[in-house]
Amino acid sequence: MNRKLRMGMVGGGLGGFIGDVHRKAAQFTGEAEVVAGAFSTNAKRSKQTGKSLYLDPKRIYGSYQEMLAGELALPADQRIDFVSVVTPNNGHYPISKAFLEAGFNVLCEKPLTMNLKQALALRDVVRKSGKVFGLMHNYTGYPMVKQAKAMVAAGTLGQIRKVVVEYSLGWLASPQASKQAVWRVDPNIAGPCGCMGDIGTHSQNLIKYITGMDIEELCADLTSFVPGRQVDDDGSVLLRFKDGAKGAVFCSEVSTGQENNFRIYIYGTEGALEWRQETPEDLFLRSNVEPMRVYRRGWAGVGPEAAAATHLPAGHPEGFLEAFANVYANFLACIKARAKGDSQAGGDFPGIEEGVEEMVFLDCLLKNVKGKAKWTKVPKL
Amino acid sequence: MNRKLRMGMVGGGLGGFIGDVHRKAAQFTGEAEVVAGAFSTNAKRSKQTGKSLYLDPKRIYGSYQEMLAGELALPADQRIDFVSVVTPNNGHYPISKAFLEAGFNVLCEKPLTMNLKQALALRDVVRKSGKVFGLMHNYTGYPMVKQAKAMVAAGTLGQIRKVVVEYSLGWLASPQASKQAVWRVDPNIAGPCGCMGDIGTHSQNLIKYITGMDIEELCADLTSFVPGRQVDDDGSVLLRFKDGAKGAVFCSEVSTGQENNFRIYIYGTEGALEWRQETPEDLFLRSNVEPMRVYRRGWAGVGPEAAAATHLPAGHPEGFLEAFANVYANFLACIKARAKGDSQAGGDFPGIEEGVEEMVFLDCLLKNVKGKAKWTKVPKL
Amino acid sequence: MNRKLRMGMVGGGLGGFIGDVHRKAAQFTGEAEVVAGAFSTNAKRSKQTGKSLYLDPKRIYGSYQEMLAGELALPADQRIDFVSVVTPNNGHYPISKAFLEAGFNVLCEKPLTMNLKQALALRDVVRKSGKVFGLMHNYTGYPMVKQAKAMVAAGTLGQIRKVVVEYSLGWLASPQASKQAVWRVDPNIAGPCGCMGDIGTHSQNLIKYITGMDIEELCADLTSFVPGRQVDDDGSVLLRFKDGAKGAVFCSEVSTGQENNFRIYIYGTEGALEWRQETPEDLFLRSNVEPMRVYRRGWAGVGPEAAAATHLPAGHPEGFLEAFANVYANFLACIKARAKGDSQAGGDFPGIEEGVEEMVFLDCLLKNVKGKAKWTKVPKL
Amino acid sequence: MNRKLRMGMVGGGLGGFIGDVHRKAAQFTGEAEVVAGAFSTNAKRSKQTGKSLYLDPKRIYGSYQEMLAGELALPADQRIDFVSVVTPNNGHYPISKAFLEAGFNVLCEKPLTMNLKQALALRDVVRKSGKVFGLMHNYTGYPMVKQAKAMVAAGTLGQIRKVVVEYSLGWLASPQASKQAVWRVDPNIAGPCGCMGDIGTHSQNLIKYITGMDIEELCADLTSFVPGRQVDDDGSVLLRFKDGAKGAVFCSEVSTGQENNFRIYIYGTEGALEWRQETPEDLFLRSNVEPMRVYRRGWAGVGPEAAAATHLPAGHPEGFLEAFANVYANFLACIKARAKGDSQAGGDFPGIEEGVEEMVFLDCLLKNVKGKAKWTKVPKL
Repeated sequence: MNRKLRMGMVGGGLGGFIGDVHRKAAQFTGEAEVVAGAFSTNAKRSKQTGKSLYLDPKRIYGSYQEMLAGELALPADQRIDFVSVVTPNNGHYPISKAFLEAGFNVLCEKPLTMNLKQALALRDVVRKSGKVFGLMHNYTGYPMVKQAKAMVAAGTLGQIRKVVVEYSLGWLASPQASKQAVWRVDPNIAGPCGCMGDIGTHSQNLIKYITGMDIEELCADLTSFVPGRQVDDDGSVLLRFKDGAKGAVFCSEVSTGQENNFRIYIYGTEGALEWRQETPEDLFLRSNVEPMRVYRRGWAGVGPEAAAATHLPAGHPEGFLEAFANVYANFLACIKARAKGDSQAGGDFPGIEEGVEEMVFLDCLLKNVKGKAKWTKVPKL
Repeated sequence: MNRKLRMGMVGGGLGGFIGDVHRKAAQFTGEAEVVAGAFSTNAKRSKQTGKSLYLDPKRIYGSYQEMLAGELALPADQRIDFVSVVTPNNGHYPISKAFLEAGFNVLCEKPLTMNLKQALALRDVVRKSGKVFGLMHNYTGYPMVKQAKAMVAAGTLGQIRKVVVEYSLGWLASPQASKQAVWRVDPNIAGPCGCMGDIGTHSQNLIKYITGMDIEELCADLTSFVPGRQVDDDGSVLLRFKDGAKGAVFCSEVSTGQENNFRIYIYGTEGALEWRQETPEDLFLRSNVEPMRVYRRGWAGVGPEAAAATHLPAGHPEGFLEAFANVYANFLACIKARAKGDSQAGGDFPGIEEGVEEMVFLDCLLKNVKGKAKWTKVPKL
Repeated sequence: MNRKLRMGMVGGGLGGFIGDVHRKAAQFTGEAEVVAGAFSTNAKRSKQTGKSLYLDPKRIYGSYQEMLAGELALPADQRIDFVSVVTPNNGHYPISKAFLEAGFNVLCEKPLTMNLKQALALRDVVRKSGKVFGLMHNYTGYPMVKQAKAMVAAGTLGQIRKVVVEYSLGWLASPQASKQAVWRVDPNIAGPCGCMGDIGTHSQNLIKYITGMDIEELCADLTSFVPGRQVDDDGSVLLRFKDGAKGAVFCSEVSTGQENNFRIYIYGTEGALEWRQETPEDLFLRSNVEPMRVYRRGWAGVGPEAAAATHLPAGHPEGFLEAFANVYANFLACIKARAKGDSQAGGDFPGIEEGVEEMVFLDCLLKNVKGKAKWTKVPKL
Repeated sequence: MNRKLRMGMVGGGLGGFIGDVHRKAAQFTGEAEVVAGAFSTNAKRSKQTGKSLYLDPKRIYGSYQEMLAGELALPADQRIDFVSVVTPNNGHYPISKAFLEAGFNVLCEKPLTMNLKQALALRDVVRKSGKVFGLMHNYTGYPMVKQAKAMVAAGTLGQIRKVVVEYSLGWLASPQASKQAVWRVDPNIAGPCGCMGDIGTHSQNLIKYITGMDIEELCADLTSFVPGRQVDDDGSVLLRFKDGAKGAVFCSEVSTGQENNFRIYIYGTEGALEWRQETPEDLFLRSNVEPMRVYRRGWAGVGPEAAAATHLPAGHPEGFLEAFANVYANFLACIKARAKGDSQAGGDFPGIEEGVEEMVFLDCLLKNVKGKAKWTKVPKL
């Protein structure tokens, strides 16, 4: 397939945040270009967005249904190759379902769906479709996260005993929140979990990605600090993993003054790792028997997994966009491999199983805080 | 009282850690000098220690009982003015009690006692004695901790919503632990709590000192990671305070590669503070409406509470010793004030009430992890 | 002009570093797309590069001369709108000259030319051409550099007294250098200055960009540490500015273990700024009368200049690419403005004057180290 | 000698800074106690100071001459064992000379004297006296500085190519300076060098201590930024060492907002070290072939030289006082060794040779800035 893949988008109108990141990240790979979109349910805003992207006006749509019909009406060799679903959470399920069933590959924003039931249903759709489904957990795309994963797998830490995740932001500390915030605190759009749906899922996903460990039990305390808020804006969770490892996750969107402070510490019998999203180029390896080492993207000592996700020499800062693009690169490579006939092609990007896991996590959190039991078992579905 | 106060010590033999810190810290104040001690239950080691301190051989004792008798046998104007009890935990109660009842002022290491019952009994002894009793929670002596306390009191943070404390060390990650470690994992010497008795109490005390907030409910998970260990070496605790504030404390002594990583974050409606013991000269004030400010010991913007605990100009690092000495300075000033006739003199140093609070905290932790209820009420005794 | 600008490139073959950054940065803006290139003097490598970019094979050229002819042969409404010259230094002058004289806008890598004579000649060409000429000093594109410039202009620092720049890299510490390094130490390709041509020019340019101050006198010591190396790989320079301000620049490419450690400190009578390229999201404002403030891209307290160069919310790290893209964005906007008839349109991007200044700086450095006088006057040409 | 050494002091009256540090540091070692002093030329202030130290009133003197007479009048076994000279610079020479000639050991503050002539004369006095002479360059006492010295000696860095020292403070940025500042800008009291005498000497001394390298040539620019100031408050110096190594030192006391920002970078062919006084527990080792290592006082990987200067476990911050005390500990051990009959006993503390070196450095700086030659040879006297 000697061409760029044709990308469509649902959501991502001008003035939003994440849609533009998706577009830039996909195009950063050099393997995709945006050709169509239903950027807003407001047709005028969708038009303006598509125009700002210099799209063919005929492929700027007023709704995802219209887009689906429009694309299907095109000759197969002009249609989009995949669609990125970047709407608020309540759009994820119906839009992904519709495009998958129509034969399109889909990349969807997290959290996967509004609830576990939808997640399981969507998994069925994906399985039946035979199409590629990606879930955007962008933090897994950071090179030093991949380095951490590789070091854990190589046994550098010995046996893992403890995982601590901190994810704190201040953006919802006040009732007057930004535009992007409005829907995130509306349970009809965001789902029953607020903070935990937004960043708790990132926390759970990152633990799983780096360590491969599944949560077996959890005990939580969720809070809505801002008066009148209908969903949690803060949550702390104690975790138990297989083989006795423990964990703690504390997330908050009312952490005044914090920007996007996502940290993970992984302690093993032989060593420990620390990574922080706001300074993503560093990975700290601590030990009791030698000085701390600071692994840096692009520098000596970093393995092939991170190197493959690296674009610039060390000291030339990469960031959020490149991590995002790394997820896209693997997703797009999978589509190309499938197109070449490798129907089993996968890749290093989160997909439907990770989506089901995150929805199980949210489901168990709600059960725990609503029930009386201290610990809630987390099933493997 | 135009002289230095005469200091005695029980515990603190050569080769130990904290006894020497007590001696140096007390002498740093310029207001005390060590004149007597029962530095070890091994009489020879006690002698060697006393000799290394150039003490009068007659005042180097083989046991605290001998010391008590010896000091009482001296003319009142030669006796020690106070004793510092720096033995393992099981010595705190009997030794403090004996000296208080004999009319001596006492400064005791934390945690106060082996259990809550002893703590309440010791409180009675203190009250009856009329003597000054100090409890060494040295981290309260850091100038930037005092600055944090002052800023909270001044309302800089608005209403406090969330407190997070991390206290991680790696020193007990292996079964082969150092000399100082041996008794800390022996429940007969350290008490039923290991990690939580050692550093969980520091966490609880620091929260109280800075914020003034009492824990009302807690939910915990304690772990003994090292095979065969009889006490916890790791603990995570969810906290609920009055008026809806929440907290999380995660302590561990098996955090491979961590030295003495004690951090506190305090989030309020208007601002947030972060302080870290390993870099104690910085205090970070975050807000949603202006850039982060880094308050530094000795520099502009720092208030009188911190200034009063400051010895060197900014940029000339102070550390653990000076913080320790600040606790001693206030304790010693209290003794001098009492000697001048102010029988109600107090001061900015932890005492018996803080000791009871920490023992209530440990007691509730044990109840929570042994019981079935998710939340355990923390009484105010 | 309701379309993306058509970008051509000379240099930037596969396996290089900076060419790909130019392509990605230009496309990041959403306002340009690569349509043609002579990516290598090796025609095969040029073809491979163009193919990897999915270019029309007819517009993948084997030399810049061929490219010039080929583009001019196209109808005007299909030709490239501008060319990015990203060859080694010895290509900058002839290629820029050729394209400017043929009526194309040009963006050229730094340093401008091989020597001052060429620089002055190229300035004449630019002036005569009436075309837009940009010089890629990418560090000026960082939002927090723009914030620093704005704060200096607003008088936040008072009168500037001292500027210190450190630029240290380790990549040339060994004789066995990487591919990108080979030409940089060959005076026939890089020019008579090695380290100072490469990163000394960045240092001079950043000082000028942020402070607006011209160097009036300099005194330098240049060194070639690696045996047999024909150009400097290290240089330290003392600076004198107008009105008594002083400066120091120390650059080195043999700073073992350093990645791209470019820092600037600006000290004024009232305040001081520090910025470091490897952590570019922070800008530190120090003062003698209040706590240090840490300005962060995207956060409160940051002004419109930085905000206009910001793409993601605070805490979502931006880096080298976005800074690069910010230079392109302003360069492209200038081309569009000219196309709309504003023949005087300029913009916030370095151009031919900055290029002449950097070549004067290099010229004076060489004079100083070859001559006997301690101080060398730096003329304003 | 089974007792503490008896310490006398000249200078160090209440309200000053460094005298109290000397007293606390010497007493921190457990090997000295202050017994006598002429703390001020103001007899009343001297009395108040001595009283606050609970000294015998008979040994609180009104002048150093009175003190010398008074101590000599005592029986030999009651006299002070050494005197610490902590007056402003103009007192160093006459007071040190008088006490040495009277048979007392001396520890003197830096810089050694007012000028090179005095320095050489004092060296003669020291040599004739046979007494122990220490010079307080406290930064050499930091454990991680000793670790750096050991690593350089062990060849960890390969051949040293470049040394960069930054020493910036803001305390003299305004004409209205603090009490301690007044004499430091008076050439009759501080000597002809201001900033360079105060902190330039620390820079030169630290380079020599860690690397053992002598400066062979220098080229400098000194500035008095504050109007009316008679001595330099800023200086930048280019250095040349033996075997082609180069250096740069930039010192300033008008660096608004800086506290005591003393950094050193040492670059070798194989590795590089960075140490910063304000965070003295860290030592950074960089290399081109492995990740950066952060050596920490008290932690794994640190050698015996640093360990011997370490008092607390890692993570329990030590600072300025402990470093100061480490210099005293070695000075006092030398006195004890001499007292035991080892007339050649030396030790790891700066002395008269280091004092001569620093005065040669200052002398050459003045020659360079007053003369016409670019480079000034630095003789080994």
